[in-house]
Amino acid sequence: MASLKEVGERSMIHNVIKRIRRYPGLGPGDDAAVMRIGDEDVVISTDVITFRRHMPKGMSYERFGWMAAAVNLSDMAGMGARPVGFLASFLMPPDLDETALYAMVDGMEECLSEYDAFILGGDTKTGEGAICGTAVGVMEGRKPMTRSGARPGDVVAVTGTLGSAAAGYYAVINNDEAPLSRLALEAPIPRIEEGVILADSGASSCMDISDGLSSAVSEICARSGVGMDILWDSLPVGQEVERMTRYVSKERMMLDFGGEYELIFTMSKEDLKKLYETDLDFTVIGMVNDRNKAILIRDGTETEMYNDGYEHFKDRS
Amino acid sequence: MASLKEVGERSMIHNVIKRIRRYPGLGPGDDAAVMRIGDEDVVISTDVITFRRHMPKGMSYERFGWMAAAVNLSDMAGMGARPVGFLASFLMPPDLDETALYAMVDGMEECLSEYDAFILGGDTKTGEGAICGTAVGVMEGRKPMTRSGARPGDVVAVTGTLGSAAAGYYAVINNDEAPLSRLALEAPIPRIEEGVILADSGASSCMDISDGLSSAVSEICARSGVGMDILWDSLPVGQEVERMTRYVSKERMMLDFGGEYELIFTMSKEDLKKLYETDLDFTVIGMVNDRNKAILIRDGTETEMYNDGYEHFKDRS
Repeated sequence: MASLKEVGERSMIHNVIKRIRRYPGLGPGDDAAVMRIGDEDVVISTDVITFRRHMPKGMSYERFGWMAAAVNLSDMAGMGARPVGFLASFLMPPDLDETALYAMVDGMEECLSEYDAFILGGDTKTGEGAICGTAVGVMEGRKPMTRSGARPGDVVAVTGTLGSAAAGYYAVINNDEAPLSRLALEAPIPRIEEGVILADSGASSCMDISDGLSSAVSEICARSGVGMDILWDSLPVGQEVERMTRYVSKERMMLDFGGEYELIFTMSKEDLKKLYETDLDFTVIGMVNDRNKAILIRDGTETEMYNDGYEHFKDRS
Repeated sequence: MASLKEVGERSMIHNVIKRIRRYPGLGPGDDAAVMRIGDEDVVISTDVITFRRHMPKGMSYERFGWMAAAVNLSDMAGMGARPVGFLASFLMPPDLDETALYAMVDGMEECLSEYDAFILGGDTKTGEGAICGTAVGVMEGRKPMTRSGARPGDVVAVTGTLGSAAAGYYAVINNDEAPLSRLALEAPIPRIEEGVILADSGASSCMDISDGLSSAVSEICARSGVGMDILWDSLPVGQEVERMTRYVSKERMMLDFGGEYELIFTMSKEDLKKLYETDLDFTVIGMVNDRNKAILIRDGTETEMYNDGYEHFKDRS
């Protein structure tokens, strides 16, 4: 007998996945599930955010609503899907002021409208403060990207920069200023167009970095049965990250902090050439190899990157 | 400034719906939303259940898992959709034993497998004990049933019997025995086949009775702009309901208790004739009229039936 906290999220989810009947299609394990309906691949995913874990000091209800939508749209982005609709279940304290609820809805709408996606429905129950969101999207003929297609010889790359969500978090808890990072933390941008370009360009694997780079890298390695060499010096550093190293290590911010909503992907070198012809803002950070480990190379030393299974049961604040 | 508790669920949801952009299709307000994807109508809905509110004394984790699936499939039934997939987000106390989680998954699978629906994904976070489920289904060419199509002259009918979930609840809290009712309370049967038959037979409106008969009746009246006469003597009474009147009134059990997962529907008299040729187990309980009130007729006296807006913010136990 072990508590969920002792078991840890990864092995818990592994045990759950073992118990369920396998959907004839892409099912649990990727950023989202894909259902073939008529002649369209419909993509669906669900993610919960809570006041306790995802609402750092001073964050507005609008941004909490934005985040509820954004984290789910980010799962669409990881597959290369375009979002269509969103459902939101609110678990809210009965003494919460009603204006807070409407502010959350406004923030959600603000995010969804950027992508022409609509709130389709939802539910409201008494609870401690959580929004459970579900996003639905369509592949529009593209092949869904998975976590299991990385092949030795592929390059590994990420969109945007890393570390800003963490920098924002450490700025907040230390009463410091880091406006760009705070925005990255509280109102992350789901990389929908980026995902569409990557799926169109033949990325061999892709996922969002929502649990941190180490976690994403080791997840793709495990699911694809490959290894990776990641070059520390090549990692694109968020603008305010250096300044926050007064509070926390750069490694922690760049590698191990959840809440990063960029995409990580792998791609053959041939396809990569074409990717440079697109508008995509990305950085190559390493290579896929045929060993089974994710390795970070820094100043000539190698460190293994792990998928921290307990992360989800730690409360940030 | 008013708290959510003071505002009440109905007006809160009304205020939310006013704020959001309208999806070009059926959106918030019915049991589920409908998206046209390719040449298929895809139906999607979400519902949360919590330990606090939906887990009466002695209820097993398996049944809690069953219920998480069943309440969402019931929303599919209300539209006449056939379920395909299910997503489950677990908000669970970190000190919960892992076997409890797996038991919930097993119960969920047990319910879904009855309808050939699959768990497609989910999420796990720390929380006080809740499952947020999302069901996805397809119309297979049928026209989705809504709450707004009832027309004066239609008959009003329900599937199955009423009052059993309530009878089960009052048996539990009074340490009495009522095995069938307890099953109705803890492991409700989503009326999928019934919904399919009703959509095929041209029901003019339909919804599940999950918030109680009074609520469902007044909801259809309000959404359709009609009234109803409901005949108390015609209501089909669950098997163990009479015996539980030692603890609570029959009216409370039959009319005002949530957790009833039968379907209520309206239908023209012409279509009703054909419905008698199907296998559907249903009972006509009244008529749609052109006044704007839902009236219960009993012993020659008329009482208005209301949609209790505060019900969702009351905890059952």
